Amino acid sequence: MGNEIKVPKGFKFYGTHVGIKKKRKDFGLIIADKVCHAAAVFTKNTFCGECIPIGKEHVSNAELQAVVVTSGIANVATGKVGRKNEYRILECLANKLQVEKENILPSSTGLIGPQLPIDLIEDFLKTESIEMKENYEDFAQAILTTDQQMKVRSLKVGDATILGIVKGSGMIEPNMATMLAYVLTDAKIAKEAIYPMLKTAVDQSFNTISIDSDTSTSDTVALLASNHYEVDQTAFQTGLNQLCKDLALAVVKDAEGATKTMFVTVKNAVSQEQAKSAGKSIINSPLVKTALFGNDPNWGRIAMALGKTEGLIFDQNKVTVYYGQYPIFSNSNEEKQNISQILAYIEQNEDIYLTVDLHQGTEQFEVIGCDLSYEYVKINSDYSS
Amino acid sequence: MGNEIKVPKGFKFYGTHVGIKKKRKDFGLIIADKVCHAAAVFTKNTFCGECIPIGKEHVSNAELQAVVVTSGIANVATGKVGRKNEYRILECLANKLQVEKENILPSSTGLIGPQLPIDLIEDFLKTESIEMKENYEDFAQAILTTDQQMKVRSLKVGDATILGIVKGSGMIEPNMATMLAYVLTDAKIAKEAIYPMLKTAVDQSFNTISIDSDTSTSDTVALLASNHYEVDQTAFQTGLNQLCKDLALAVVKDAEGATKTMFVTVKNAVSQEQAKSAGKSIINSPLVKTALFGNDPNWGRIAMALGKTEGLIFDQNKVTVYYGQYPIFSNSNEEKQNISQILAYIEQNEDIYLTVDLHQGTEQFEVIGCDLSYEYVKINSDYSS
Repeated sequence: MGNEIKVPKGFKFYGTHVGIKKKRKDFGLIIADKVCHAAAVFTKNTFCGECIPIGKEHVSNAELQAVVVTSGIANVATGKVGRKNEYRILECLANKLQVEKENILPSSTGLIGPQLPIDLIEDFLKTESIEMKENYEDFAQAILTTDQQMKVRSLKVGDATILGIVKGSGMIEPNMATMLAYVLTDAKIAKEAIYPMLKTAVDQSFNTISIDSDTSTSDTVALLASNHYEVDQTAFQTGLNQLCKDLALAVVKDAEGATKTMFVTVKNAVSQEQAKSAGKSIINSPLVKTALFGNDPNWGRIAMALGKTEGLIFDQNKVTVYYGQYPIFSNSNEEKQNISQILAYIEQNEDIYLTVDLHQGTEQFEVIGCDLSYEYVKINSDYSS
Repeated sequence: MGNEIKVPKGFKFYGTHVGIKKKRKDFGLIIADKVCHAAAVFTKNTFCGECIPIGKEHVSNAELQAVVVTSGIANVATGKVGRKNEYRILECLANKLQVEKENILPSSTGLIGPQLPIDLIEDFLKTESIEMKENYEDFAQAILTTDQQMKVRSLKVGDATILGIVKGSGMIEPNMATMLAYVLTDAKIAKEAIYPMLKTAVDQSFNTISIDSDTSTSDTVALLASNHYEVDQTAFQTGLNQLCKDLALAVVKDAEGATKTMFVTVKNAVSQEQAKSAGKSIINSPLVKTALFGNDPNWGRIAMALGKTEGLIFDQNKVTVYYGQYPIFSNSNEEKQNISQILAYIEQNEDIYLTVDLHQGTEQFEVIGCDLSYEYVKINSDYSS
């Protein structure tokens, strides 16, 4: 993957080991040549990490120049000391890199509860030299916790490049959490346009996936534009949407214990919101997820998940459920003649497409989930304390 | 258990095999000597069984004389034929038992999708004699699907007796579903009082439990009063609440694959509703449930589940989390000195009491859940079609 990736003009990267994790890289930096137009969206979890309120404040003027990520400890539920530690890191960095503290976006990911080893980090930043690189790989590795792999994508929009780097695979290890995504571009994006653009892309990508219905305390998606190339704004939005979709899918593909990916489209709903709620109800149902793990085309559980969706308007006698192209339920009847083809479809594919046609309205929405396996239980019940 | 159970005056029972299941009892009846005052609450799942709208209509005048349960097939997603089949059963029974059709409450539980073997059932009802018994055991067995055990409780309120019979252990087997509970009493309960009484009891009992966050398509709780004995209404409500709590706990204890029961109290919340939402968010979190299975006192996941509760008002710096009597998190700090005692508490107990003190208001609520084990995945991913 590495040789296909293009890096937009104006950004440099860094990643190293400072001592939060035992051995692996745990400290990452992105710095732009000059102040960028920027936007970010953050976790809606109100029990959030100490980075989150700081990040919200720093990006509020739509400007950022750097991103710093500490991984291994999430700095969540750490109170005033935790907040102060973030500011100590930001001050060291601001001095060292000649960047305004208020133009740095901080992120932390890892264990909830412990304090950062702040003395170690401060010593490192005060004594060691930091050599920023054109290559993103050290950074992309430094932000991982128990992800199986780096997840990086890029694409071109006219002269401009968009690069996305993401980490996350659910709340993977005991106490581990967080999806972090950094999207960098050298396109010119106006200050007032950048947040709506990011929000549009995130709603169609990261906000459509669910691995285990649990919302991390530190999720952050940030977009930084270094403003080198004019681009057609519509083309840029399309590219940004596509890149974010690819990154989001990479997260689901790296989901803990997952053996299959499930693409659920609910169509002909009364509204997009209802189609999305119904889709989320399906991909978050433990019974649907375990059936998928067992290669079981259990449409009764799909029906159950539809029915428990709050506020969903539909008539159960009009619902059609498809696996791939094959209807399994329509006109209040199981389509028995399709069962053997559907079984083969589920057994032979890793990507399973499920479509629910409500025959009620004209709106549709696709969400993406995964199965629930023994491995998920193993990973998440392994002893942590 | 059998010899402690008391049966209220005026009710008889029946349970037999008619041919829906292969061998086990699959057809149950309760009949009262005369028309009872009655109330029932039903699943909120809108993809509901054909019994549900019929039951709602029949109990709408607060009168019932009989209950009929078919088990093995849920008669869900079966369209007009499914509805007609329920009426065919009700008509046969009405003729045979000299009971008004409109005074019979029908229930079905089992596979979603297939039609009932209506000819078999009709033949049976037209040709075989039905001998009603004082003993409830045949009925209690006939309504089970893959429950591990019969779940029956009774208690006395003054001269009157309340008897409760329940089935359900989550959506246990592939395609299997449903919690059914029948509560019978010989107390005198006025027509206008019986629904509010049942609703109050159900809100404090069945509505506080969650095994896997999935809502069955056929859930029903019914209360029938044969009006023999005057009782103090407050004492009766207290007794009814207790009985429903005991039955609900019996359902959680029989939850598929569960090794532990988790009692979560959220206290000092702004409202009971918020306390309940926060508690449900905790007991429904796959990460909290897998941690419990692994004997892992992972309070970071409790914090995460609190934070993702929609609309919950709290200050994360004021939250205290207890396992049993031991605080594990308070004043933004892990209480490290308690960890070894908490580990012992979790390892040595099947019933785990978790308390979250929000220090925000004055209201509290207790909810009851269970862990998520390999066995749950196994049971629910086993191949069904």
